[in-house]
Amino acid sequence: MHILITGAAGFLGQRLVVRLLERGELRGHTIRRLTLVDQIEAPSPDSDSVDILRLALDVAEPGALDDVLDARPHVVYHLAAVVSSAAEADLDLGMEVNFDATRTLLEGCRARGLASTRLVMASSVAAYGGDLPAVLDDMTALQPQSSYGTQKAMCELLINDYSRRGLIDGCVLRLPTIIVRPGRPNAAASSFASSILREPLNGEEAICPVTTDLAMFVMSPARVIEGLVHGAEVSGEALAPFRAFMLPGITVTVTDMLDALRQAGGEEAVTRVRHERDPRIEAIVASWPARFDARRARALGFVGDRSLSEIVAAFLAENASARSEA
Amino acid sequence: MHILITGAAGFLGQRLVVRLLERGELRGHTIRRLTLVDQIEAPSPDSDSVDILRLALDVAEPGALDDVLDARPHVVYHLAAVVSSAAEADLDLGMEVNFDATRTLLEGCRARGLASTRLVMASSVAAYGGDLPAVLDDMTALQPQSSYGTQKAMCELLINDYSRRGLIDGCVLRLPTIIVRPGRPNAAASSFASSILREPLNGEEAICPVTTDLAMFVMSPARVIEGLVHGAEVSGEALAPFRAFMLPGITVTVTDMLDALRQAGGEEAVTRVRHERDPRIEAIVASWPARFDARRARALGFVGDRSLSEIVAAFLAENASARSEA
Repeated sequence: MHILITGAAGFLGQRLVVRLLERGELRGHTIRRLTLVDQIEAPSPDSDSVDILRLALDVAEPGALDDVLDARPHVVYHLAAVVSSAAEADLDLGMEVNFDATRTLLEGCRARGLASTRLVMASSVAAYGGDLPAVLDDMTALQPQSSYGTQKAMCELLINDYSRRGLIDGCVLRLPTIIVRPGRPNAAASSFASSILREPLNGEEAICPVTTDLAMFVMSPARVIEGLVHGAEVSGEALAPFRAFMLPGITVTVTDMLDALRQAGGEEAVTRVRHERDPRIEAIVASWPARFDARRARALGFVGDRSLSEIVAAFLAENASARSEA
Repeated sequence: MHILITGAAGFLGQRLVVRLLERGELRGHTIRRLTLVDQIEAPSPDSDSVDILRLALDVAEPGALDDVLDARPHVVYHLAAVVSSAAEADLDLGMEVNFDATRTLLEGCRARGLASTRLVMASSVAAYGGDLPAVLDDMTALQPQSSYGTQKAMCELLINDYSRRGLIDGCVLRLPTIIVRPGRPNAAASSFASSILREPLNGEEAICPVTTDLAMFVMSPARVIEGLVHGAEVSGEALAPFRAFMLPGITVTVTDMLDALRQAGGEEAVTRVRHERDPRIEAIVASWPARFDARRARALGFVGDRSLSEIVAAFLAENASARSEA
């Protein structure tokens, strides 16, 4: 089993590598080789049993993946992308990396007859937009209101068509907002959703820029990684007639998040959250769908978090283990 | 008012040119110039008042439309496309003509700052597919089951994004099945829908390859042309948040069509229809959505046919006038 991962140095890429090395197998076959592609050499654990190749290259460069595809990977995780804000700031960059590079990857697989290679791509809740119903499902139209969402939606269509034609065996997972991300607050509009849990639990202050009754559709990093693993293993026939769908996140309000914070860190932790509403962030986050009937993913065997407390407990356990290692 | 039409030699392109010359104005401005682009020089009436430029070129060639866009058209009708069966037979050809040429056109407009140029594109009922609900609306997901439908859906997303970014002022009309088309039966799966009306009314035999309770979503050529005209005139603000939607066709069964044929041509006409079911054609046509709540288009002022009898009467009138001219 040879697995190629683009965007392997990213948050999800790094965790996926760790998880795959832990498992040692995918689709019932021992993992022999991991090819990790990113703009920088992707950090990863070493392994005695798996041949790990780390390549620093730009997937948007013509021919960049030629050698890698010549090695005929059995599974390709295509996680390389420019993020939402960058794609909005620079249309050409977004089109090149988020769309053209995906098309080039599909063409590369087609040219080499990699019809049975499973291509797993990450799409996003940002593919949805417009006048949405109160509860979405997998038959809700994609009317993205950002260039990032547009590019992801176009990739979904293309991967579905290449799969339908038998040129590749694709599976596209639309990811909910991921909480609790490690690290520091950043410029992403969704950053607060991790921050208002992470910082107070680490004894620091956090800012909540939105009204507390705002709802979001969320999933823990561990469940997303399990989703990526299952995305490589789920049967191709079961994926017809359309190979893109939403992972089964859970709907939580900011109040739910503050309750979970209280449960995990006491009233003191909750007082570390300063409420300073930012209408710009609130408008962006409120435009994302929060309620989803992810029936399709569940029927295909994808699993969501059981509760927000479980998500917070997992974060605390991971945090403690990272600290004891440090 | 300078109007550019790609695919101007096609069935819709030719009728659109005639209609625009009849009107003499669009968006409140006198039409001064028509640029007709197709692989062959597009036939069209002559005009004393309108400067008509007929260009034989391939819109998929790099730079093909450079000179035309340098002339800064106010309205672009982008009708050039390879049809469904050709796009399915040749993925590269379909991608080049149906997708890449559209993207090049958008980029050409962007490079020239044609932000207020209204781009009207024809999309298709073939953009829909998969496990569809009994009645569709404009929030039903596009899960196309053909490369043609995939390419059209990708163009819709791109035109919406370029419009949202203020680079172009786009409007994409999803067309129902058009009946009654003039001419002869052809290889299209939908060909019978025009044929079982047209041929018997002309005293000839026709073959009906599908069960009589099969339903289709249809529109007359005249209403489609009026839709294209209105697509150039409808307000850009009203088109947000998504610039592609289905025109208001009507749902008719084959039985309805045979009844309309009886009404127009008597029992004798109906006996000219031979019923020879073709499971291949039946499967394709049955996969197309037949029932649509085209609320969005109606709210935007697009108008559908009142009845099937009206469609047949219009065909007969046009037929008679074509014969008297011949």
